[in-house]
Amino acid sequence: MSDKRTAVLVVMDGLGDRPVQELGGKTPLQAAKTPNFDRLATEGQNGLMNVIGPGITPGSDTAHLALFGYDPVKEYPGRGPLESFGAGLETKPGDVAFRSNFATVDSDLVVLDRRAGRDFTPQEQAELQAAIDGIEIDDVKVHFITTVEHRGALVLSGEGLYAEITDVDPHETGKKILTARALRPEAQKTADVVNKLMRVAHERMRGLETNKERAKKGIPLANALLVRGPGRHSDVPPLPERYGIKAAVIAGGALYIGTAKYVGMEHIPVEGQTGTIDTNFDNIATKTIETIEKGYNFVFVHIKAPDNASHDGNTKEKILAIERTDGMVGKIIDRVGGRIVLAVTGDHSSPVSIGEHACDPVPIVLWSSFIRPDSVKKFSEFDAAKGALHTIRGIDVMPLLLGYSGYIEKFGA
Amino acid sequence: MSDKRTAVLVVMDGLGDRPVQELGGKTPLQAAKTPNFDRLATEGQNGLMNVIGPGITPGSDTAHLALFGYDPVKEYPGRGPLESFGAGLETKPGDVAFRSNFATVDSDLVVLDRRAGRDFTPQEQAELQAAIDGIEIDDVKVHFITTVEHRGALVLSGEGLYAEITDVDPHETGKKILTARALRPEAQKTADVVNKLMRVAHERMRGLETNKERAKKGIPLANALLVRGPGRHSDVPPLPERYGIKAAVIAGGALYIGTAKYVGMEHIPVEGQTGTIDTNFDNIATKTIETIEKGYNFVFVHIKAPDNASHDGNTKEKILAIERTDGMVGKIIDRVGGRIVLAVTGDHSSPVSIGEHACDPVPIVLWSSFIRPDSVKKFSEFDAAKGALHTIRGIDVMPLLLGYSGYIEKFGA
Repeated sequence: MSDKRTAVLVVMDGLGDRPVQELGGKTPLQAAKTPNFDRLATEGQNGLMNVIGPGITPGSDTAHLALFGYDPVKEYPGRGPLESFGAGLETKPGDVAFRSNFATVDSDLVVLDRRAGRDFTPQEQAELQAAIDGIEIDDVKVHFITTVEHRGALVLSGEGLYAEITDVDPHETGKKILTARALRPEAQKTADVVNKLMRVAHERMRGLETNKERAKKGIPLANALLVRGPGRHSDVPPLPERYGIKAAVIAGGALYIGTAKYVGMEHIPVEGQTGTIDTNFDNIATKTIETIEKGYNFVFVHIKAPDNASHDGNTKEKILAIERTDGMVGKIIDRVGGRIVLAVTGDHSSPVSIGEHACDPVPIVLWSSFIRPDSVKKFSEFDAAKGALHTIRGIDVMPLLLGYSGYIEKFGA
Repeated sequence: MSDKRTAVLVVMDGLGDRPVQELGGKTPLQAAKTPNFDRLATEGQNGLMNVIGPGITPGSDTAHLALFGYDPVKEYPGRGPLESFGAGLETKPGDVAFRSNFATVDSDLVVLDRRAGRDFTPQEQAELQAAIDGIEIDDVKVHFITTVEHRGALVLSGEGLYAEITDVDPHETGKKILTARALRPEAQKTADVVNKLMRVAHERMRGLETNKERAKKGIPLANALLVRGPGRHSDVPPLPERYGIKAAVIAGGALYIGTAKYVGMEHIPVEGQTGTIDTNFDNIATKTIETIEKGYNFVFVHIKAPDNASHDGNTKEKILAIERTDGMVGKIIDRVGGRIVLAVTGDHSSPVSIGEHACDPVPIVLWSSFIRPDSVKKFSEFDAAKGALHTIRGIDVMPLLLGYSGYIEKFGA
């Protein structure tokens, strides 16, 4: 295919829904005014998508891995590396990453506060980070970065590390930090390193200026580090290697940025982009257009707002989030429609009636100026069921987008 | 998902059909009056299903394994264990089970009658069963149970048994019982045990009172046991283990009960439930409702009658069987509709025009009070083709049912 285009994937988080009584049985997507999405539906191909598989409720991380073309069952590295990338701490194949908390323990390592009071100043965070980042245990190097409040990301770098170990976080107060055990023989080294790290971190943290000050103020000390959710950066090839493309992510939430960076996308920051309904849709549109014009081959745009509204059971706000995304997409196609292949979809359903992820398939529309349209005229869960894509899976999206964009070579001769 | 429901799977055996001339080109399902199925179709999601895969004609056993969520290609244990469970003789992982016949042989083990006259009194069956059940050969224990007429189920229990051996049944008279050979090296022990068993069984059977009496009456002696259809109970986790659910089967036919029990369902007997058109549909409805109310998480209801009518080429009776099942399902949804997720389908097509299983996909409707409906208004092979489920496979049914019922945990975070 000679005419290469930029593949653009717009994901509205938690888009799919069920009939809502206050909307006369319509879904929020059906009730929303979406002239641009409806144009895409009319000119493009529509379908339903089981992001993981029929009946499976996707998590945000597994759903996005699938949408990026990675088999969520075989290639899911666990939450650690994805969060770590999101926090700005990049892992490499073989690293084991954890989510972490600052915690308060007594001298017997009994947990008194799993969040060490939760609030930290930037100065406190910087001192604590410096105390932990760079620790070496045996031949393993510890990388650490704080994120928000008491949270952080921790990465172990070294030979022969595996994620299959038991938890050190007792997940309740009044209990001692647990001893990590290997769940497979190869993971013994990792368990040993983590157990040593618990003591070394405690030794390094307890004497810090931060804790002297906190003691004076009667605030819980940050004298221990609890790690959880280990995951190993696997050897899957990132997108640039797999497809020979330059890929970008435009997202407000750390997990989405992290998952995208894990598979080799470059994060393009947008002023005013957040994970809420007040995110700056205009700036996102402008930056997306700019990124396309710069020659990126693939751009992933993530809008978190519909999922937040779903979790809050806020039908009106979900409709608003969808309508604002519609406007944003309208700007993109008006400006660069002729040079892109576009998919608009969700990562999972989050019915406002239940306020959490559900297994219902999500609608997807695939559009380009040259694509064969089907008979669907409106973008919705109901109309999509009658489209030419029928039912696809999340891992089908990337081949479809990149195939039509001209980045997948003919298979065979 | 907090709102858990009971998943109910109603299978009409051999449901799918082709246009029938005497019905003006309609299928029996289209010609049947099915107000309840049509309500489900209107309020639910419809589709077509290739129970095994496109173009593959399912057997009854493989079709049901698929419908229960087991990969029929990788996880089919062969007929032996399924028949054995159906006969009431439960196997455990590692056991090798066979179907068996009483037969008549001469002193050189030449088969004179493969069914030993076919008719047996309960007393004769009991004496023969006692002679074979409990035989030990090397370290292998033989379990045996008679079923109907000359038939029975036989199970070998012991270490290192495999099903890959050649047949001992010559499948015609005038030929000697064959020597079983191993089809893979590990199965040599099983072949040896079976070959010894053929002689031991003959020794034990020939002198029985039953055979003295049969000799007096000139009835063929039951002095040999032919085994066939070996299958090994594999290590696949049963449903309660795989999904943490309590599962029940309501069926009249031994093979269906056996296959369901093999995957861990509990058999709920129903007075008057048979495999024919005269089965007591009212009692089946009542017992299904009772089982749902008792808190079972999954209930499988099997109706054999449509398949019998298909094999007989009896269009009228097939329509009647479908209409009676429709009434039965109506009672269930009237009483407990609000607490179930329901799928109604077939295990394969059995067109009345050909009187046997065929590869044509079957219609399926998935219904619950909260599910997103599609635009289909009638339950039929033709209407289902326009539904939101599009084309699924048999192994998708269980994830769909259990996903919407709330028994599959979110995958990822």
